[in-house]
Amino acid sequence: MERIYSSELGEYVGSRVRVAGWIHRVRRLSRVSFLILRDARGLAQIVLDESAVAGTIGGLHAESVVAVEGLVVANSQAPMGVEIRDPEVEVISAATAAPPIDLFRPILNSQLPTLLDHAALTLRHPRRRASWQIAAASLSGFRSALGAMGFVEIHTPKIVGTATEGGANVFTVDYFGRPAYLAQSPQFYKQIMVGVFERVFEAGPVFRAEPHDTTRHLNEYVSLDAEMGFIRDHTTVMDLLTFTIRGMIEAVRNQCGEALGLLDVAIPAVPRTIPAIHFADALAMVGDALDEDLSGEPDLSPAHERWLGEWAAREHGSEFLFVVGYPMVKRPFYTHPDPTRPRYSNSFDLLFRGLELVTGGQRLHRYDDYVEALAARGQEPGALDGYLEAFRYGMPPHGGFAIGLERWVAQVAGVANVREVTLFPRDLQRLAP
Amino acid sequence: MERIYSSELGEYVGSRVRVAGWIHRVRRLSRVSFLILRDARGLAQIVLDESAVAGTIGGLHAESVVAVEGLVVANSQAPMGVEIRDPEVEVISAATAAPPIDLFRPILNSQLPTLLDHAALTLRHPRRRASWQIAAASLSGFRSALGAMGFVEIHTPKIVGTATEGGANVFTVDYFGRPAYLAQSPQFYKQIMVGVFERVFEAGPVFRAEPHDTTRHLNEYVSLDAEMGFIRDHTTVMDLLTFTIRGMIEAVRNQCGEALGLLDVAIPAVPRTIPAIHFADALAMVGDALDEDLSGEPDLSPAHERWLGEWAAREHGSEFLFVVGYPMVKRPFYTHPDPTRPRYSNSFDLLFRGLELVTGGQRLHRYDDYVEALAARGQEPGALDGYLEAFRYGMPPHGGFAIGLERWVAQVAGVANVREVTLFPRDLQRLAP
Repeated sequence: MERIYSSELGEYVGSRVRVAGWIHRVRRLSRVSFLILRDARGLAQIVLDESAVAGTIGGLHAESVVAVEGLVVANSQAPMGVEIRDPEVEVISAATAAPPIDLFRPILNSQLPTLLDHAALTLRHPRRRASWQIAAASLSGFRSALGAMGFVEIHTPKIVGTATEGGANVFTVDYFGRPAYLAQSPQFYKQIMVGVFERVFEAGPVFRAEPHDTTRHLNEYVSLDAEMGFIRDHTTVMDLLTFTIRGMIEAVRNQCGEALGLLDVAIPAVPRTIPAIHFADALAMVGDALDEDLSGEPDLSPAHERWLGEWAAREHGSEFLFVVGYPMVKRPFYTHPDPTRPRYSNSFDLLFRGLELVTGGQRLHRYDDYVEALAARGQEPGALDGYLEAFRYGMPPHGGFAIGLERWVAQVAGVANVREVTLFPRDLQRLAP
Repeated sequence: MERIYSSELGEYVGSRVRVAGWIHRVRRLSRVSFLILRDARGLAQIVLDESAVAGTIGGLHAESVVAVEGLVVANSQAPMGVEIRDPEVEVISAATAAPPIDLFRPILNSQLPTLLDHAALTLRHPRRRASWQIAAASLSGFRSALGAMGFVEIHTPKIVGTATEGGANVFTVDYFGRPAYLAQSPQFYKQIMVGVFERVFEAGPVFRAEPHDTTRHLNEYVSLDAEMGFIRDHTTVMDLLTFTIRGMIEAVRNQCGEALGLLDVAIPAVPRTIPAIHFADALAMVGDALDEDLSGEPDLSPAHERWLGEWAAREHGSEFLFVVGYPMVKRPFYTHPDPTRPRYSNSFDLLFRGLELVTGGQRLHRYDDYVEALAARGQEPGALDGYLEAFRYGMPPHGGFAIGLERWVAQVAGVANVREVTLFPRDLQRLAP
């Protein structure tokens, strides 16, 4: 008999069916017992008689894999409105021990490090599974939105000869006896590819050897990158980002109804135009509000971003806020200055619920500007020859953005720590599983 | 005026339009000159008068970025059947020098190392661009096919604490003073995720520190991985792979008509059922045909695979051939043996036009089988605890496959060296660009 999924049971009332999955729980009540079976799509309730409980099922640990054939009966008391009666149970693969964590509890009550140590088990929990479903839907929405705008998917190397974003926060690889690095971003490559396809995107891993341990940072994460040519300035990129975020939310809405319900979260709304505030104005406003002298500060702290998030919600009814015009000194060498205020840049961050989610902006596109920008920072252009060649031979005004997937999912799911929504996080302490 | 793409010109005959792109070539004939403009979608022919040639255009190197406004006129002599007359040319970004390689030639005649050194420039060539278009379409077809079968996209860590496939071919990373490795495959993670979603896929980078220098190998490549639970055996995976390959080909056919034309290649046909031959029979047949004693050989050489590819084309009219049942000694520890002939495995390779393109098969799913398999190879299970936990707590029979994207594109495009179709290849010699 062909196996069906638990989510399809409602269509088979009155028929015998075969389901298969993991023993989520066996509930022994005084008169009746239930086997709750978990498969990829949900849960199924199976009514057990005494002999089944005493026999096959009684000897099995939770998480054992079984197939069950039985009759589908409507029962308004059952979780899905249906249950399976008169079951024949076949053991496919018995768990060798009782799981150290009870997956049947609605909310896992172990500490985060324990949950992560046992990821192979705990990711099976419906709520942990639900947060990755949001990630998967977001990826599909990201690609659909950009695909509809003519963007071409690229895959660029993660082992590189030169650190992309500069600085010390780079992992070193032994590359056949030579030092190489793990790419901190696909920045150089996506810019090069603007010269080829004008519009490109990549969803892939990036690596940051930042030695700090916060709830917002991972040392390896998934970056959703886009880059486009023939822009007016950073505002073209902001429009593209708004469109893309809208597509990601649409995909989450369409593909993750059940996951959102399980996590009890509301889907964010994207205003027609996301409000934008200049960095200098944001700084002045935060300084006034918190009675701090922030004039001349080159950056916003996480606390300042939270304040701005609340301000945007209050004043603009928006969970999203663009902060534009970050000071050039805080941005990488390829950043395009604001032509009217050259100390500030044509770049932006997008805050989502008070957290920096996206960085983007316009890049330099003239070869001479690169040579000058590198010289001003005391960097030799030599190591970047293969990258600078793109600008030597003609590049249009262009820009792009990078969305941190895990931060996005954490904010959508309303969790405090990105590790809670990352399949197998990498941080200062954690290299396994 | 809103810019249009070169590919849209046919819809604007009689109108003034704005196009933008790179100077592909300036052709000076005795009576008239042409500017050939290249944008993301194709080429546009622009008729220049004497003053333009003497003025703006004359001073520009090829690859300079320009915008052109002019009148679209039908002309059956023009490459696209239309051309732009009465142009006003605006220089957006001048190339600072003449490109060292002429992109206007139909086929780039430089040596491969030169083409790769100048990737930022040479990827702009229509034929090089076309081969990546096949890659991008294949990625989208891979995801659509698996998405339609209920597979969930995953992203798994590339920095790992333990080598996946064992052996010495692993790159070492300095992870905050500790040794870590670059993942040789997402194998362990995709198996763990079968316990969560039953069906998963990932398209991402994998890293092999293989110190050999062939036309088929890269040290970093894109692996298209899928894994599914509740299979009968490896034949379920072969059926899934056939469906997936068909979806990839369909996407290439639908999205890459022009690219296939430029590369002058025929789209491969997937037979209803891809022919399959057992490894032992393949070996005997090749041995007979080549008059070599191959009995007892544990593997097929590239030359043998080529012979088998020709045999499949001749005998079965198929460009694809499954070789099933590779000897267990040649397969990794997680491979499931053939229950009826335990020296052979429930695994397969898929040859495409005589080249190994995919490896796949059924995996062990019982915890005790893993402990035994590792012991038989003298490996301690301790380092794999986080992986083995999946099997300790119940896993269904499962299996999957991994397609090498670059090999796939090289075979579709009919090129001899995978580097020709890789954006920025990584090999023994090459770390940049």
